[in-house]
Amino acid sequence: MQRIGKYTLQLDPPAYIRGSGSFAGKKEGEGPLKDYFDATHDDTTLGEESWEKAESKLQTEAVKTAIQKAHLKPADIQYIFAGDLLNQCISSTYGLRDLDIPFLGQYGACSTMAQGMGMASVFVSGGAAENAVAVTSSHFCSAERQFRFPLEYGGQRTPTAQWTATAAGAVVMGKQPGAISVREVTFGRMTDLGVSDANNMGAAMAPAAVRTLTDYFTDTGATPQDFDLILTGDLGYVGSSLLREIMRKAGWDIETNHNDCGLMIYNRKEQDVHAGGSGCGCSGSVVCGYILKQMAQGILKDVLFTATGALMSPTALQQGESIVGIAHAVHLHLET
Amino acid sequence: MQRIGKYTLQLDPPAYIRGSGSFAGKKEGEGPLKDYFDATHDDTTLGEESWEKAESKLQTEAVKTAIQKAHLKPADIQYIFAGDLLNQCISSTYGLRDLDIPFLGQYGACSTMAQGMGMASVFVSGGAAENAVAVTSSHFCSAERQFRFPLEYGGQRTPTAQWTATAAGAVVMGKQPGAISVREVTFGRMTDLGVSDANNMGAAMAPAAVRTLTDYFTDTGATPQDFDLILTGDLGYVGSSLLREIMRKAGWDIETNHNDCGLMIYNRKEQDVHAGGSGCGCSGSVVCGYILKQMAQGILKDVLFTATGALMSPTALQQGESIVGIAHAVHLHLET
Repeated sequence: MQRIGKYTLQLDPPAYIRGSGSFAGKKEGEGPLKDYFDATHDDTTLGEESWEKAESKLQTEAVKTAIQKAHLKPADIQYIFAGDLLNQCISSTYGLRDLDIPFLGQYGACSTMAQGMGMASVFVSGGAAENAVAVTSSHFCSAERQFRFPLEYGGQRTPTAQWTATAAGAVVMGKQPGAISVREVTFGRMTDLGVSDANNMGAAMAPAAVRTLTDYFTDTGATPQDFDLILTGDLGYVGSSLLREIMRKAGWDIETNHNDCGLMIYNRKEQDVHAGGSGCGCSGSVVCGYILKQMAQGILKDVLFTATGALMSPTALQQGESIVGIAHAVHLHLET
Repeated sequence: MQRIGKYTLQLDPPAYIRGSGSFAGKKEGEGPLKDYFDATHDDTTLGEESWEKAESKLQTEAVKTAIQKAHLKPADIQYIFAGDLLNQCISSTYGLRDLDIPFLGQYGACSTMAQGMGMASVFVSGGAAENAVAVTSSHFCSAERQFRFPLEYGGQRTPTAQWTATAAGAVVMGKQPGAISVREVTFGRMTDLGVSDANNMGAAMAPAAVRTLTDYFTDTGATPQDFDLILTGDLGYVGSSLLREIMRKAGWDIETNHNDCGLMIYNRKEQDVHAGGSGCGCSGSVVCGYILKQMAQGILKDVLFTATGALMSPTALQQGESIVGIAHAVHLHLET
């Protein structure tokens, strides 16, 4: 492992993706990526007694599938990096407690998939683990009632609001060489430009994505054109437009090869999701489902996955605080 | 870095403690460790508008002091591992956002100090960082109103309840050799024996401490007698009694050299704290204040710091869930 520039880790040896799992709910199963999830659930409770328990179950499914696809058993995994949006990260705790794998809770809000993937990659590359799992989830219903309003209230959503995806994604990172590797990781700094509208997370997170992307390009000497896809998650429509504009003004053109998990998971025009998808499980399920499958088929070779998070709580906003953004970047590379 | 046994990382090269900071509130400043904090605050709001903001300020103070004592600047720190008990870890976010250091949010409940210290040590030992900070905090008032009752309600506390410490601890781990090192780290597995009383966290966490301690001893071949102090945090009186009893039955005698941060931070008989202290900031401030100072003076040479966490939320308990315990162990060694 080697530090390059101010903020980037070059993983040598790289960490390889050995398996992944991606599960989602009904609405996601009606969207454009429906064929790329391992399974979708028509019942948003997944047969559980609460939405929180349903979200936990999504994590369990994602991790078990990822480990299975890696042809491993839970005992072969040294660490699991997991986190979610719920208070005290309970989806992770209750979803993973039976696995008996050393557990390292992560909190990066919607950046959790990239944070956990980066963390697992650093542990594998540095010799701390042979295999490590990263997983995250979100659930529309558990998130709405915790962060905004009870669903029964039937509140109107603003045009800038994003739709929290009911989904989970998990990945097994390992030392044993495979088709897809993580080559570099850039963990981000917190960025706060004063946005305090919880219904406009995209605007709060875009500046953090700009920062981490420019850190990555500056550190590595790479340019946006070196990537088939610069993939943020989940800025949605408002945040993505902001990101592209600020990047262009800063001299980095990502117009042609940028996309955002929040814009990919739903059909924005037909599915009434306003500015697009969000939630840890959005980028988690898109990357661990669609993206890795596209890479495995050779359609994508180099993807700069940059997940963004809005670090805030209803309590903080009620006390007049702004929303702090963060973004972590992971370079996914298809080995030739 | 090398894996020994099933669960332990031997850090070679070790990571060294370069500086630490420890701040606390009024009640802690009236306790037996009062002279070991860098400062204590008589005003529980620290001059801020809310207890949550006060808690953030404790983290700011602890980190700035730790970096200063290490004779470093924030720009010399590559990563900051931080977490706390508040929903979405807002004490960490708002306390650290201005530092401009890549931020990796951790969630380990009251085990966060050991988790972050272990994480920072792994990153330093593995070459991912020259210096990394670990920090955590808790605040009696912000925790009570979030987890239990509004303070104004004046609810009676049960005899097994612990008192959330108003405190923060931070440490700078670095590559440059110093007097105190982290030699091994054992990250724990989740343990759930079905305890569901939020006023008896000690009982929920003790089995997790047993597991991580026995993992550590089994992996390394060390015995409890190799340590001047086996330090849990924060099991309090009930959990500590349970821990010692289970360990004795399992053939590991820790009677003479075990202590618990929750039993050390207050005078239990005179300060009306029932079963003792708790909260991330309890073990954080005790280790980063008292313990490291005792080590620097040569009074303690080998300390097995094993912080325990209760992974749960009020929502989970209301839905009938039990409290999941976790414990992470870090071997602190005074170099000769």
